[in-house]
Amino acid sequence: MRQSNMLIPTLREVPKEAEIASHQLLLKAGYIRKLASGVYNFLPLGKKVLRNLENIVREEMDRAGAQEIQMPSLQPAELWETSGRWDTMGLELMRLNDRHERPFALGATHEEVVTSLIRDEINSYKKLPLTVYQIQTKYRDEKRPRFGLLRGREFLMKDAYSFHEDFESLDETYNQLFNAYKRVFERCGLNFRAVIADSGAMGGKDTHEFMVLSDVGEDTIAYSDTSDYAANVEMAPVVTQYEQSNEEAKPLEKVETPNAKTMQEVADYLGHSLAEGMKAIMFKVDERLVLVVTRGDHEVNDVKVKNLFDAGIVELATEQETIDAVGAGFGSLGPINVPESVEVIADHAVKSLHNATCGANENGYHFKNVNPDRDFEINQYADLRFIEEGDPSPDGQGTIQFAKGIEVGHVFKLGSLYADKLGASFLNQQGRSQNYVMGCYGIGVTRTLAAVVEQYHDDNGMFWPDSLVPFDVHIINLNAKKEEQVEVAEQVYEQLQSKGFDVLYDDRQERAGVKFNDSDLIGVTHRVTVGKRAGEGYVEYKHRKTGEQQDIHIDELVDFLKTLHS
Amino acid sequence: MRQSNMLIPTLREVPKEAEIASHQLLLKAGYIRKLASGVYNFLPLGKKVLRNLENIVREEMDRAGAQEIQMPSLQPAELWETSGRWDTMGLELMRLNDRHERPFALGATHEEVVTSLIRDEINSYKKLPLTVYQIQTKYRDEKRPRFGLLRGREFLMKDAYSFHEDFESLDETYNQLFNAYKRVFERCGLNFRAVIADSGAMGGKDTHEFMVLSDVGEDTIAYSDTSDYAANVEMAPVVTQYEQSNEEAKPLEKVETPNAKTMQEVADYLGHSLAEGMKAIMFKVDERLVLVVTRGDHEVNDVKVKNLFDAGIVELATEQETIDAVGAGFGSLGPINVPESVEVIADHAVKSLHNATCGANENGYHFKNVNPDRDFEINQYADLRFIEEGDPSPDGQGTIQFAKGIEVGHVFKLGSLYADKLGASFLNQQGRSQNYVMGCYGIGVTRTLAAVVEQYHDDNGMFWPDSLVPFDVHIINLNAKKEEQVEVAEQVYEQLQSKGFDVLYDDRQERAGVKFNDSDLIGVTHRVTVGKRAGEGYVEYKHRKTGEQQDIHIDELVDFLKTLHS
Repeated sequence: MRQSNMLIPTLREVPKEAEIASHQLLLKAGYIRKLASGVYNFLPLGKKVLRNLENIVREEMDRAGAQEIQMPSLQPAELWETSGRWDTMGLELMRLNDRHERPFALGATHEEVVTSLIRDEINSYKKLPLTVYQIQTKYRDEKRPRFGLLRGREFLMKDAYSFHEDFESLDETYNQLFNAYKRVFERCGLNFRAVIADSGAMGGKDTHEFMVLSDVGEDTIAYSDTSDYAANVEMAPVVTQYEQSNEEAKPLEKVETPNAKTMQEVADYLGHSLAEGMKAIMFKVDERLVLVVTRGDHEVNDVKVKNLFDAGIVELATEQETIDAVGAGFGSLGPINVPESVEVIADHAVKSLHNATCGANENGYHFKNVNPDRDFEINQYADLRFIEEGDPSPDGQGTIQFAKGIEVGHVFKLGSLYADKLGASFLNQQGRSQNYVMGCYGIGVTRTLAAVVEQYHDDNGMFWPDSLVPFDVHIINLNAKKEEQVEVAEQVYEQLQSKGFDVLYDDRQERAGVKFNDSDLIGVTHRVTVGKRAGEGYVEYKHRKTGEQQDIHIDELVDFLKTLHS
Repeated sequence: MRQSNMLIPTLREVPKEAEIASHQLLLKAGYIRKLASGVYNFLPLGKKVLRNLENIVREEMDRAGAQEIQMPSLQPAELWETSGRWDTMGLELMRLNDRHERPFALGATHEEVVTSLIRDEINSYKKLPLTVYQIQTKYRDEKRPRFGLLRGREFLMKDAYSFHEDFESLDETYNQLFNAYKRVFERCGLNFRAVIADSGAMGGKDTHEFMVLSDVGEDTIAYSDTSDYAANVEMAPVVTQYEQSNEEAKPLEKVETPNAKTMQEVADYLGHSLAEGMKAIMFKVDERLVLVVTRGDHEVNDVKVKNLFDAGIVELATEQETIDAVGAGFGSLGPINVPESVEVIADHAVKSLHNATCGANENGYHFKNVNPDRDFEINQYADLRFIEEGDPSPDGQGTIQFAKGIEVGHVFKLGSLYADKLGASFLNQQGRSQNYVMGCYGIGVTRTLAAVVEQYHDDNGMFWPDSLVPFDVHIINLNAKKEEQVEVAEQVYEQLQSKGFDVLYDDRQERAGVKFNDSDLIGVTHRVTVGKRAGEGYVEYKHRKTGEQQDIHIDELVDFLKTLHS
């Protein structure tokens, strides 16, 4: 394409609201334009990259045996009422009435539609397992749309749904799609982790999130520095072995700790490290009071408390509830002298504490030289804390590092939740009616595009992995007023196109500096500049990412580019 | 794909609401399923054909130099208020509020969005002409969604918009896109006409509709039987030359015509043909009374009356207005003795009438032996009637035939209407600010798919043009219980796939009759049945449309299919 005719409105300045690189650069390089908060136009370059990405997703889904369908965005409210999500989705679900005042949801996701479709069209195990997918626009009225394509209100998603007779079959498909997702993100050249995630809220079983590592990510990932283990930080079990001290146990001693409320204040006052103290926090676990004790430098992970008790609700007790139960407020709690009405549990690390300190359950007092077993009893030791950088990886390989991640994909063993709600059953091999076991799988397509930019840019603009780059080659005519250069540039343009290269040709009447700046912004990998040596038949090649450059004779250009491109 | 695993829910019966072939067959063959009135799921077969169609559209748009973009469906109400269409679109425009109660339209079309985009991003003639397009879901809350994909509320459309400095440039792009549209519909194998259409309402200049000829179409096309001339029936000029009679002019005679109100009753009573009478109808043209006279067998075309006077409103006068003006009611009007306050115009055919009859402007009376010029004067003769089958074609080639048409495409010289409303200007070559001249161009993608089925089906189901067919080959395993047949079928399946054929393989445990019925319904062109002669290495080939069949040895199958497929 001739750049003079193409809609690539590059900018010198970007709106202040664009805080992160992908948002700034996609605007600046003329890939996208905002129409409304969280709603974007894709301009020609943006659309080209998006289509490349769609094709990767489609190929990998097809290869995994999923069948492409297309479901509507206009979804009758009744379906959402039946699943219960008409209420629970709240303001995030966009809604409208048709001319007959019939209410519709604008598809935020398609569990309801696909479950009713399969319910109505399939009635036998013979058709199972079955996986369908679509690449389709989704609508979610985010409270705070931001970061450009990372959190929008109208965005492109690939969603897939699988239907099974049992969990064994679901496991198989789940693994296939897990691998398909890995291939998608690998082909996008992304540095990502498949992360064990929390399946709690949706009532399902296993679930993984695919996280692109990036400082602008909103999630924290705990990953091994040597294996491919990765988990959402709240999901990672702690397998640390703590050393027992051989030091002599000193006599228990109660000391006044006036005005020392926080762990740090107590430690400073008593002259020890945080790790030599105990932290005790009172929780209400389904209305039961539970005192959770950890080492002073550790943080309680309430997901683990919840899972330990298989509880519905875990929340902090109020200070009054705490005072009523043990006779002291928040700053002075500890495991000694706890009435039987309160259950005391502790993280494994507590067992190895020696001559430590803890609150005395008496406001303004702590115990020193506390030793577990000798001085108090614990109902249960368990893994109750957040994993930390430096902890051993739960898979036994390497140590844990933290990173921020952008969630670009999600695979989820949904179970029979939606099938139960929508009455989606089939006749199984024994001729009995049973509800489907389902999996659901999503890729944020537009979000993935933004995540790629987060990992593929420098100070001058974007560069792209070969799989996504909008053009194969960017030809720059250095001086559109020099006839000789124009002639050679046109000739090179024709030649490369005739050899099957998809070429962007900057034929504009602009200064060289403007053209180079725009070229760096746009980020086509291979740049060919037709400049002063055009008369001798030489052009200058430059690689966008490495900056490597060399003069090449136009007779050798096609072969040279073919080598790079293959 | 193995049919046993594919979501192709064929039906024996279709819902009664499906009245036309495309609706019935797309349901019956498992291509689509209704989710709500005018809102459809595309199942795997439907999606495959749709993608084939999309790719044809995309290729031809790209070839015509248009640039693919993607604009949002969520469109801020302000844009539509600025263009005035927030009010004029009425109930057809779907609307919703976001969580902050800000109103949005769901994109029914994108003139507003694209005009504001180009207004904001381009400011110089140097970037012109520019054509952008998208293939995107549209929402229109049709009063009466029906005929399946022909008139839906959520449907796929290709819409394009071009921006120009002047009409000369618009003409050029219009012609390019006109030809691109022709190629699209030709590649879809459609029998269609590019039809001159009425541009009046939208304030533009030229406009053509692409009409697929079909009895279920809602529009009537007048087309030449020998040239490619075609027009919407109200747009076709009449160029008929009428013969002058040599018969002697008889004396004018007033006769009583009791109880004869209609043209037919008068003609019967006086014993002549309809063509020997005159029909006179009183119109109000922008408040002025105009008596329009045509030959008794012709129909007044009020679009032509409107265009003749360049009028705003043309409507029938009331009977009272008629009586007040000429002294007689509807059944007795004629061009003789008309007061000067009423203008009398006549269709060219009236000039050649000879010894004809007409109303006497006196209730219950007509004149006989009326001769134009001798007996009355006409303010103006003009082309005022509807064209009819048998009339000569306006382009001078052949005679006119009528056909019903389905509108699948529309190209339109929009002019500056939206640019004016939205203040979209640029600096022209003279450095002066001027508003864009625009064209807009649409293809109903899902509607085109339905139109193809209307032209490509028989009593047993669909068949498809090669460009759209969902699979290259349909293999049928006649008896999934016979090991020998299964072996050969699997072998053929593997073989064809390895040679690059996209194969649907009916490996189901179903009776042969069921398989053949489904295969006819689905409509893959080339069917290969593995049956009784499998042991000898022979399979049966059958062509879906022609029914031609022959036994072929599996060693020759690939070459045979390659010949057919190329």
